[in-house]
Amino acid sequence: MAKVRMGMVGGGPDAFIGQIHRMAAGLDGNIELVCGVFSRNNDKNQQAADILSLSSNRVYADFQTMFDAEKKLPADERMEFVSIVTPNDSHHAIASAAIEAGFHVFCEKPATFNLAESESLAKQLQQSNSLFGLAHTYCGYPLVREAKHRVAQGEIGEVKKIVVEYSQGWLAKKLNNDGGKQGAWRLDPKSAGISCCVGDIGVHAANLAEYIGGSEIEHILADLGSVVEGRTLDDDATVLLRFANKARGVLLSSQISLGEENNLKIQVYGSLGTLSWSQQEPNSLWLLPGDKPAQLIRAGFDYLCPAAQACTRTPAGHPEGYIEAFANLYKHFSQAVVDHRDNTVANSQPDGVPGIKEAVIGMRFIEGTVQSSNANNSWLQLNTLNSKSMETNS
Amino acid sequence: MAKVRMGMVGGGPDAFIGQIHRMAAGLDGNIELVCGVFSRNNDKNQQAADILSLSSNRVYADFQTMFDAEKKLPADERMEFVSIVTPNDSHHAIASAAIEAGFHVFCEKPATFNLAESESLAKQLQQSNSLFGLAHTYCGYPLVREAKHRVAQGEIGEVKKIVVEYSQGWLAKKLNNDGGKQGAWRLDPKSAGISCCVGDIGVHAANLAEYIGGSEIEHILADLGSVVEGRTLDDDATVLLRFANKARGVLLSSQISLGEENNLKIQVYGSLGTLSWSQQEPNSLWLLPGDKPAQLIRAGFDYLCPAAQACTRTPAGHPEGYIEAFANLYKHFSQAVVDHRDNTVANSQPDGVPGIKEAVIGMRFIEGTVQSSNANNSWLQLNTLNSKSMETNS
Amino acid sequence: MAKVRMGMVGGGPDAFIGQIHRMAAGLDGNIELVCGVFSRNNDKNQQAADILSLSSNRVYADFQTMFDAEKKLPADERMEFVSIVTPNDSHHAIASAAIEAGFHVFCEKPATFNLAESESLAKQLQQSNSLFGLAHTYCGYPLVREAKHRVAQGEIGEVKKIVVEYSQGWLAKKLNNDGGKQGAWRLDPKSAGISCCVGDIGVHAANLAEYIGGSEIEHILADLGSVVEGRTLDDDATVLLRFANKARGVLLSSQISLGEENNLKIQVYGSLGTLSWSQQEPNSLWLLPGDKPAQLIRAGFDYLCPAAQACTRTPAGHPEGYIEAFANLYKHFSQAVVDHRDNTVANSQPDGVPGIKEAVIGMRFIEGTVQSSNANNSWLQLNTLNSKSMETNS
Amino acid sequence: MAKVRMGMVGGGPDAFIGQIHRMAAGLDGNIELVCGVFSRNNDKNQQAADILSLSSNRVYADFQTMFDAEKKLPADERMEFVSIVTPNDSHHAIASAAIEAGFHVFCEKPATFNLAESESLAKQLQQSNSLFGLAHTYCGYPLVREAKHRVAQGEIGEVKKIVVEYSQGWLAKKLNNDGGKQGAWRLDPKSAGISCCVGDIGVHAANLAEYIGGSEIEHILADLGSVVEGRTLDDDATVLLRFANKARGVLLSSQISLGEENNLKIQVYGSLGTLSWSQQEPNSLWLLPGDKPAQLIRAGFDYLCPAAQACTRTPAGHPEGYIEAFANLYKHFSQAVVDHRDNTVANSQPDGVPGIKEAVIGMRFIEGTVQSSNANNSWLQLNTLNSKSMETNS
Repeated sequence: MAKVRMGMVGGGPDAFIGQIHRMAAGLDGNIELVCGVFSRNNDKNQQAADILSLSSNRVYADFQTMFDAEKKLPADERMEFVSIVTPNDSHHAIASAAIEAGFHVFCEKPATFNLAESESLAKQLQQSNSLFGLAHTYCGYPLVREAKHRVAQGEIGEVKKIVVEYSQGWLAKKLNNDGGKQGAWRLDPKSAGISCCVGDIGVHAANLAEYIGGSEIEHILADLGSVVEGRTLDDDATVLLRFANKARGVLLSSQISLGEENNLKIQVYGSLGTLSWSQQEPNSLWLLPGDKPAQLIRAGFDYLCPAAQACTRTPAGHPEGYIEAFANLYKHFSQAVVDHRDNTVANSQPDGVPGIKEAVIGMRFIEGTVQSSNANNSWLQLNTLNSKSMETNS
Repeated sequence: MAKVRMGMVGGGPDAFIGQIHRMAAGLDGNIELVCGVFSRNNDKNQQAADILSLSSNRVYADFQTMFDAEKKLPADERMEFVSIVTPNDSHHAIASAAIEAGFHVFCEKPATFNLAESESLAKQLQQSNSLFGLAHTYCGYPLVREAKHRVAQGEIGEVKKIVVEYSQGWLAKKLNNDGGKQGAWRLDPKSAGISCCVGDIGVHAANLAEYIGGSEIEHILADLGSVVEGRTLDDDATVLLRFANKARGVLLSSQISLGEENNLKIQVYGSLGTLSWSQQEPNSLWLLPGDKPAQLIRAGFDYLCPAAQACTRTPAGHPEGYIEAFANLYKHFSQAVVDHRDNTVANSQPDGVPGIKEAVIGMRFIEGTVQSSNANNSWLQLNTLNSKSMETNS
Repeated sequence: MAKVRMGMVGGGPDAFIGQIHRMAAGLDGNIELVCGVFSRNNDKNQQAADILSLSSNRVYADFQTMFDAEKKLPADERMEFVSIVTPNDSHHAIASAAIEAGFHVFCEKPATFNLAESESLAKQLQQSNSLFGLAHTYCGYPLVREAKHRVAQGEIGEVKKIVVEYSQGWLAKKLNNDGGKQGAWRLDPKSAGISCCVGDIGVHAANLAEYIGGSEIEHILADLGSVVEGRTLDDDATVLLRFANKARGVLLSSQISLGEENNLKIQVYGSLGTLSWSQQEPNSLWLLPGDKPAQLIRAGFDYLCPAAQACTRTPAGHPEGYIEAFANLYKHFSQAVVDHRDNTVANSQPDGVPGIKEAVIGMRFIEGTVQSSNANNSWLQLNTLNSKSMETNS
Repeated sequence: MAKVRMGMVGGGPDAFIGQIHRMAAGLDGNIELVCGVFSRNNDKNQQAADILSLSSNRVYADFQTMFDAEKKLPADERMEFVSIVTPNDSHHAIASAAIEAGFHVFCEKPATFNLAESESLAKQLQQSNSLFGLAHTYCGYPLVREAKHRVAQGEIGEVKKIVVEYSQGWLAKKLNNDGGKQGAWRLDPKSAGISCCVGDIGVHAANLAEYIGGSEIEHILADLGSVVEGRTLDDDATVLLRFANKARGVLLSSQISLGEENNLKIQVYGSLGTLSWSQQEPNSLWLLPGDKPAQLIRAGFDYLCPAAQACTRTPAGHPEGYIEAFANLYKHFSQAVVDHRDNTVANSQPDGVPGIKEAVIGMRFIEGTVQSSNANNSWLQLNTLNSKSMETNS
């Protein structure tokens, strides 16, 4: 069977996340990078091509040129989907052009620069034949899927409370905005949008809570702060939550927490038990029944649900990590691309891959937290928020 | 040197916390239990006396009788301080009578039934010669003192954010209020006051944050809930904090978190590093500088500050726990009682023992969280709250 | 009920272990220290008396004087048992004199200076009316008792292998033998006997393996070393084991392992599952069934066996530690002393307290490891070893 | 730059380790699988080709056919190295034929069926132009390289003792030898050689100790056992060690330890400090100085040595695992293959890749443990062991 052919926009030689996407896409040996626009800088673009063993005629000057050119290639040669790994402000234009040209799209998060763009993209997708995947990487961990499965099976009863935290420390000190640090654009409203901390990591935490808990966040009360002096955007956030299923919640998100690396963790408290997972020890999932010994559920065992087993590549005790989790999104997405080749399947969201729904929800969450925080930390019903209200707001 | 003579009110045969107090007081061999009122039930009262090897003439029917009788005993025989381990609603009456009779007081927390009582007690103490200690046990851990010391020394720079959590699961399911479970009174407003979760454990978390961080909580926004149906009082609480030193904070407190035992933990994030401590692993304190390896500070080492070393009884690797932490409060309090014997020292708060100041602050915090939560989760400046405002409120 | 009256030999102002014994004995409020010989140095002896609030007429110049004098006191006043906390070389003489005088004995480990002394003590005890307790402290932890219970219940099937480790680092560097370090006598053959590392800590590990596993060590192959130059006695040891039930075993013991505090841990591997416990996290016990999630058994829960529950003083999540474990031995021993007061019970070993049998076994293990190691690390059947063979050997 | 072209022998559709090798080789995007013999079964062989998107003319019936055919392809098309992932008994024949045909070889461990074969391979390699890499995967972890670096830098002083353990539980119960379990061949002397437990995992532990500690094992005393009835080969082993630098050591290796997953861990105790690493938490390395707080060294930080940084693909807190460690060996090996293309470099062992030297050492260790264990667990000097002595022995 022919490999799935991927193009890429972004991810030049110095970029962190582009290389992660390429490793994740390549891990299972069923996706081949065939073309790309890796940098606006021509030298860096060609340099990337060389490193990646791409023939130079498949390296393009800009995304529109790439889509136009690839479209003209024979069906069994041309790119089948594009992976978008640029800063937030360009996601929409690239994705929209790709869909327009008939390609599938796999996109970094947050999906777009603002909610309006995500809503617009959602409409475009509805009228297209394209698949859309969103890189909410943490959903790709096997034990996150196990947790979701157990909640859905009722193993912890009714969900009563969720505490989710995503803490990092890399913005604890003032950065030199000279580009030395690759992530400095995240603090720039022109590239990042209206939020840094919530937009970059808080939205992951919100997604994880909704994914595992199986219920959407309906109301929020947010407390955003710019702890390091001189910043326009937030670098720290706490958000009180109410889910559709009436569960209470707290989301803590911070980039000024020195010593925290990439500390995403979640506790889902139910009426019959609790599930607890931490990204930095991703191969362990705790089930705490309260009155019996806690159980340590581990990746790689036969007792896991099929969804979790399908996301595992090694036996128990051989740690899998972030790249493997990421690869699971690509694995499911590329399988959907294959299924799509002969049009035998409907254009539904690939199982196990966050999509445009999560894109809109995520953008609404980001904009909602900013609005709630600005409104003296008052409660906000998320579905009353739409692109229009935000436009008025800004 | 003669042992310090302690009396006790409360702590009958079935009570949990009374026995803890006795073990804590007795651990270092310098305090002797000489008298008590252990139960309103005469049989249980006598039963306690027997178990405790107390002569029956030092077991009294009620606290007033005890204070009167002990007062008349020779100075080198009579009780020197009383330990109060009854439910919240009787603390004030007992403490006040003890002070009136010239005894020192060591009291369970929360200090009183409401803020007004604590403020009243504060006034009474000012005009007395009595010492007052409050059982904020967690301050007694050596590494909590080490953490306080390191913050004070500037080792983590300016405190920027504190996240403190105190989670338990023992109220996750409906209790039978038949008294089978010893703690059922905590859900009864008549015994417990206006809060269950914040009053019982949230206030410990607030105290710990102020103790280690070295700055008082000035503003709060609280979100209290009664998760289990049919409850009058809160069993779950999240509180947003602003400290006097401008640090941000989040306090999570819950009694419906199945599988959580007594999970009190704190992160103090500073501009130069982070300190992290968890009560369930109390002999470890983490210092995270961010850009260098995290350091695991352990109890029992010479490198600890004198205040921490003074609270440690065993070499490193010989775990000390909750009773030892509790004993540290008694140790410092009883030392102050000894110092007080010959009146050579001023009647100041014993070093290392929370006192009436913390009592008032704690009661204000408890009442403040209820008021903020009731006011649609809005910000409240704690020092604008006084007993009078609450009376109006209720 | 009158408290049990304890005397003490050893444990002067500077000693570590004596104060631990006193705290452990005093924790539950049912034992009273009434007399002692705390130091051969008269000043220190009196100083101890003052610190301990003992009347000076119950502080004696030497143990024989104490036993003689106490014997003459009224039955409800005199010491009921003596706690021996001196270096190893004097244990036998003190214990023997105490038994001779009709007192019960609670003794630090190793029981005696050599195997011959323990065997002699065993004979003397058989003909006496005295109880004998040995401070194998680690047996006192609730979850060690839970582990023993579960093995006995067959929960892990047949025991196949035991790995037990006891590592410390305090002898990693050369000590000044000037007595500054309190433990320097352990390296001196005249005080410590023929082994330092095995005699001080290895024997604890062996005892723990036999206690939990329920089967005696029958054969050993030992590899003892003096890692730090210039030492006569061992500071590091590895011992291969075969138990009576045919299980294999490995015992690792070291005092030169820098950074190890008091790292005693054990894995008991069975045909149906594994139990794992570590002294530095004593309130957790792991049960690993292999093909199902591991279970984290925690102190303070109702699901524990009665023996474990009887050794627990606090609810789950309120850590108990070394002193509490120690106190459990005293608690059971003192209960036996009380039962003995009216002679209604036979003079059997108090349940839950290691005794003279463990003393002999322990001394045989210590001498056996030295002999095996000296014999070019060859296998030794322990029951072929007796005091006589060792005398010939030395 | 053209990708490095890899062939494979073994690794059919059901095999575990073959797929791991392919993922590891493919992770960084610079190696391309171009041909293979995946199974002796023709259907499975073709099935593998299809799954792997290989053109069927590059899938061969046997390894000799493959080497012959590939040799005839144009230089820029043909396989450059072969990856051998078959059971132990065929390693030597395949490797030898590959070298004979002028290819480089990357081989699973243990290198060969017996020591004689490894010694023979070593001679052949000396006279060839081929590179040889051995899959001692655990050397590929960044923090293993950091540990090696720190020992070499003298950060822990003189190495005094190494304790290394590799425990698994998958052979705790009797397997059905019907091939259902993919690893059953490891218990069969015809496929596995003279050892199961030491040959499969003990040799990894020995390699890790030598790699990090920087000194070879010179003497061993081994205690091998077949715990599960009816087995010819060992499933459990303990080995006492003496290193060339005089350090003592203990190696524990077991496959009957229920609940252990892939528990490889090592403590290197030095005169100035201790290093501790565990494969199941591979992104953490502990440095314990003894008298100062322990340091938790974490993957992904700038403070790591260049060798560790070169093996890391993600920022701190984004866990990397087993596949990434494996990929590091392929990364370094394939770089050496590239360097070799134009013959500008000498045929030395690629930095960071275990080779034929480790192959011979490993086989000598395996055969030595069996010999020592059979000789009543007596000490054996490893360099007195050679293929001849073993032939006599068997």
